[in-house]
Amino acid sequence: MDPFLQAALEEAEEGYREGGVPIGAVLVHGDRILGRGHNQRVQRGSAVLHAETAALENAGRQPASVYRECALYTTLSPCPMCSGAALLYGIPRVVIGENRNFLGEEELLHSRGVTVEVRQDPACIDLMVRFIAEKPELWNEDIGV
Amino acid sequence: MDPFLQAALEEAEEGYREGGVPIGAVLVHGDRILGRGHNQRVQRGSAVLHAETAALENAGRQPASVYRECALYTTLSPCPMCSGAALLYGIPRVVIGENRNFLGEEELLHSRGVTVEVRQDPACIDLMVRFIAEKPELWNEDIGV
Repeated sequence: MDPFLQAALEEAEEGYREGGVPIGAVLVHGDRILGRGHNQRVQRGSAVLHAETAALENAGRQPASVYRECALYTTLSPCPMCSGAALLYGIPRVVIGENRNFLGEEELLHSRGVTVEVRQDPACIDLMVRFIAEKPELWNEDIGV
Repeated sequence: MDPFLQAALEEAEEGYREGGVPIGAVLVHGDRILGRGHNQRVQRGSAVLHAETAALENAGRQPASVYRECALYTTLSPCPMCSGAALLYGIPRVVIGENRNFLGEEELLHSRGVTVEVRQDPACIDLMVRFIAEKPELWNEDIGV
């Protein structure tokens, strides 16, 4: 697996072990991970720290010039908030582990010129299938359903 | 002034006094404020706690049924991330202090069925004019420029 998607998946797996929503993300600049994170709904009672926003938060304040050379890797197709975060910072490339369990705002990203790559990675798919079967109410809460 | 916009402005003014980006927001359900907040870029080194996401975060985990009866008040037209947060949670109404200093994703919100109200409030406008003149680099960082 792509090492950056692997790192995002490790974040997701950590979230699963913590009893949380198992979605992970990393913000990548060149060959370096600037920030990594996973959904914090359960762990921190957070409504806004999804995997992608957590990775951005953990990367700290970065200059616009850096974001514009970054890729955002996430294990699951990004929701409107997280897609919007990518647009806010002009992140040019979003790499998505899978979109079978949830289809986020890929079309919006594409329409704004972001390169969107969907890997349909079996490990990413399986982890979400397991989680959604185990905790459907938590999952629904996370996506506002 | 609308008391909820006033509360958002008070958050923005607190952010200004703290040396931060002076944008404030409140999440309102019926006649009650569920959460309030202001941009935390300077105060907490945050890349994702804008006014609106901070208000959502401070409101804590809410059921989808509550968000769908809420209004999100913000002193400034919401950026893609914060507009996306409103879409994620199905918040049906966004009340905006002003959009003269920054025009966010109002069209996207409108196209998805969100009621968008822009008040062009002089106090909201003046606070941002002052801030942008004083700290243009901080402002540009906040909007990814």
